[in-house]
Amino acid sequence: MTKKHQQTCPIAEFLNVFGDAWTLLVVREAFYGATRFGEFRTNTGAAKNILSDRLNLLVQQGVLETVDIGEHGTRYEYQLTERGESLMPVIVAMTQWGNEQVYGKDREAVSFFEKRSGKKLLKLRPTDRDGNVLGLKDIVVRAGPGASSAARQRIAQMNMGGD
Amino acid sequence: MTKKHQQTCPIAEFLNVFGDAWTLLVVREAFYGATRFGEFRTNTGAAKNILSDRLNLLVQQGVLETVDIGEHGTRYEYQLTERGESLMPVIVAMTQWGNEQVYGKDREAVSFFEKRSGKKLLKLRPTDRDGNVLGLKDIVVRAGPGASSAARQRIAQMNMGGD
Repeated sequence: MTKKHQQTCPIAEFLNVFGDAWTLLVVREAFYGATRFGEFRTNTGAAKNILSDRLNLLVQQGVLETVDIGEHGTRYEYQLTERGESLMPVIVAMTQWGNEQVYGKDREAVSFFEKRSGKKLLKLRPTDRDGNVLGLKDIVVRAGPGASSAARQRIAQMNMGGD
Repeated sequence: MTKKHQQTCPIAEFLNVFGDAWTLLVVREAFYGATRFGEFRTNTGAAKNILSDRLNLLVQQGVLETVDIGEHGTRYEYQLTERGESLMPVIVAMTQWGNEQVYGKDREAVSFFEKRSGKKLLKLRPTDRDGNVLGLKDIVVRAGPGASSAARQRIAQMNMGGD
């Protein structure tokens, strides 16, 4: 895939990899334990060519890896890498948004639970060091060492949080 | 836009709205304080027709709202709604993933900070009620009241967390 976004921005880079309707659905399946092409296909409903493309992309990006299982008729399976597992906050945040904002309270479609306690996973949200929940007005954005001068300039002109 | 995914799944529903390379980049700009078409255009680099389509989608989805500002030559501006602000965990999680996994430690492109303390925003990750960080092996997924029978069946067969 060609990179859609050239900006030095972690969100733009995230979207360069995951910015389409299928890629994160394939990642969801890997989180749910799918490993075989056929499982991904059944559980996402993706057409073969789309699924094949997205699995290749995820392997190339180090999110999944292929593991040779030497079984007759199945050459390998796809497993989440550590880099893939590090998508957990994104997957959880998307799940919670979809449940709250599309399905609504007490009508959740699918939710995550703590395995040990059986309790529903807490809502993921930014907090300060004392545990206070932070809203948009409580955070600011700053250019880091990896920002281009264009990104740096753009951020200096920003109006985040209304100040 | 036609819905790509028909599954009852909060991630599928999330991707039905945000599953492309541009929509969340437009949301990023709204978080950063952009309100005018021209600002969104300059700061995302999106072509006019793409930007116009995504802004309309976000208004239709209740993520942005148009506010009449009655200024000569500018009919209205786009403002984040409460529903839009509730995307904050997703935006933060994507930002942190991109910084960690694409740019790497001490090479972050753009980061969020606590306005009050000036400290870098804590890494967003699932924890239990005692504050212990939860990994993939510590969580399970369950169908909720809004799940279709297909989704329910699929989740019953799952292998999440390897048990």
